Amino acid sequence: MNDRIAKLQTYMESHELDAVLITLPKHVFYLTGFASDPHERFLGLLIACGEEPTLIVPALDEEAARGAAKGVGAFATHTDTDDPYVVLKGLLPGGIRRFGLEKTHLTVSRFEQLNEAIGASEYVDVDEPLREMRVVKSDDEIVRLKRAVSLVEEVLRRGLEKVAPGVAEIEIVAELEYQMKKLGSEGPSFSTLVLAGEKSAMPHGTPGLRKIQSGELLLIDLGVFADGYASDITRTFAVGDIDDELKRIYDTVLQANLRAIEATRPGVTYASIDKAARDVIEAAGYGPQFVHRLGHGLGIDIHEFPSIHAGTTDLLVAGAVFTVEPGIYVPGLGGVRIEDDVRVTDSGVEVLTSFPKELTVIG
Amino acid sequence: MNDRIAKLQTYMESHELDAVLITLPKHVFYLTGFASDPHERFLGLLIACGEEPTLIVPALDEEAARGAAKGVGAFATHTDTDDPYVVLKGLLPGGIRRFGLEKTHLTVSRFEQLNEAIGASEYVDVDEPLREMRVVKSDDEIVRLKRAVSLVEEVLRRGLEKVAPGVAEIEIVAELEYQMKKLGSEGPSFSTLVLAGEKSAMPHGTPGLRKIQSGELLLIDLGVFADGYASDITRTFAVGDIDDELKRIYDTVLQANLRAIEATRPGVTYASIDKAARDVIEAAGYGPQFVHRLGHGLGIDIHEFPSIHAGTTDLLVAGAVFTVEPGIYVPGLGGVRIEDDVRVTDSGVEVLTSFPKELTVIG
Repeated sequence: MNDRIAKLQTYMESHELDAVLITLPKHVFYLTGFASDPHERFLGLLIACGEEPTLIVPALDEEAARGAAKGVGAFATHTDTDDPYVVLKGLLPGGIRRFGLEKTHLTVSRFEQLNEAIGASEYVDVDEPLREMRVVKSDDEIVRLKRAVSLVEEVLRRGLEKVAPGVAEIEIVAELEYQMKKLGSEGPSFSTLVLAGEKSAMPHGTPGLRKIQSGELLLIDLGVFADGYASDITRTFAVGDIDDELKRIYDTVLQANLRAIEATRPGVTYASIDKAARDVIEAAGYGPQFVHRLGHGLGIDIHEFPSIHAGTTDLLVAGAVFTVEPGIYVPGLGGVRIEDDVRVTDSGVEVLTSFPKELTVIG
Repeated sequence: MNDRIAKLQTYMESHELDAVLITLPKHVFYLTGFASDPHERFLGLLIACGEEPTLIVPALDEEAARGAAKGVGAFATHTDTDDPYVVLKGLLPGGIRRFGLEKTHLTVSRFEQLNEAIGASEYVDVDEPLREMRVVKSDDEIVRLKRAVSLVEEVLRRGLEKVAPGVAEIEIVAELEYQMKKLGSEGPSFSTLVLAGEKSAMPHGTPGLRKIQSGELLLIDLGVFADGYASDITRTFAVGDIDDELKRIYDTVLQANLRAIEATRPGVTYASIDKAARDVIEAAGYGPQFVHRLGHGLGIDIHEFPSIHAGTTDLLVAGAVFTVEPGIYVPGLGGVRIEDDVRVTDSGVEVLTSFPKELTVIG
């Protein structure tokens, strides 16, 4: 984990930051390996250049923190009757000029308390370097992501056994989320979607009492957290026989998914893989029905940087992990989305999801 | 809804605030009745003294906002390519001195964008007046809270039908959360707890694969959101015959719950009702095993102001709604918590929850 702190320290040197305080629990986990939910209690990783950082934790988390945190030089604790900002102040030299913090996470109240303790002349946002660092996954992160993917695919397999005409969408949601817990994940990485028939055409529809019927599409979008990392997969199924237009839509989305994956390799823009999928869908006449971006980064958050659409000019780099999820939604008729999780390799792409993608009839 | 905006305007006058911007979606709902989840898009209710406020909404929510918002004088919209801070700036006169905002909600990044648009000389936190206003529930809010309570009690009744020796905790969680959706609630108001045997002694335990067994306690803590309001109830059951110590613990917690409710009336301190429950438990010799506060406010959030413990010197007022949830937790043996939702009336108390509290044998 020291690598990540070292990288942040390099950034600090080039941006002349005297110190950085990390308070987002996910970032503390990312930088040290210590996962916790401090609720309203203060948690902070204080980083100066050239030395190992100090982790400030609630006293009741000290033992867990000492057991899990890597690359931390010292631990400072506070109880519920201590002022954690006094603890923080005691750890800092005077005369701090430029101080780094997570401006898109920190609230104004907390910032005012911090400012009173630190009194730096300038506060600099460090969200961007963290966001950038998180794009490239380490081998350990890939192992965790693969476990999250393999768990969710088993959940999907088991959930499909309950699909039959007459079963309500929310019954399948209940079964899927039960299997997530049973198989040992940390739970859903987002609200599970099971949408049948015309509801599959609503990209943000809510599962309800609508019963699954023969002759229609069933769209299932789900993911889990495992070891702190998220998976995210969508498959669309045929319940019994479906008509030719639905089959044509399915084939078009599948081709779009495959083309985008084929186009995935280091050095191309994210916009170009969005275009690879969009071109297939536009050529089939469904361009206006592909109403969302191609995908998004995936890691300790379900939606990470970057957002993948026509305007994303960043270049793909080896180690990046993201979703590829083209879709076509025809109001009143039905929708298809096929979503995989992929990793950019040194020369191309590895698809982490392995659940079959050919049109499958269930129920 | 205008009453609430009028109250906030009275506060603004007495605190010499030129304007207030409300951006927490729950506060916009509380003040106008318009519920939405704007995700990363900008939502803001701009309030000046002596006039109806302006609601700034994403263009795609305009229709819903116009349909739902009460007491709003004007609507301003922005699309994904507009800068909402430019829209905001256009609505403000120059020379703003004191400007109110929600400092415990607003992030530093958003504050910096706001400050650039507004350029006020001083920013004042308005979390406190909102928190205070929310304590006293209106008749409409009581109706919504009662519906949330009645829904969750039916969920609990149905879930209990699945309890039997050999069934895992998470199977009951799955059934309860399925029933929440089926009965038309907006979903759980917090993560449902089903804890069996020695796990019932862990106030923050996590339901797992542990199977329910005869002769032990089963603690179930659950709630739903309905019409934007939360319910929160805990009942503890005996699975088959339980031993005398567990029965004594149960009776003690039940007496503590009843005493605290008896003590509930306008004009007494929250500390005094915590003490009413704690005295019963201490007299029975279980004082050190009642490891948490008596309860918390309940409304549009599952945990609202105030937090009810020995240090809460605020006085109860008619219209306040909160939980009363004493508990005893004996490590290795088991735990009991009995939680009701109550409302302070003009002369005493109304218990909103009506699920039976005498020791019930299930399974």
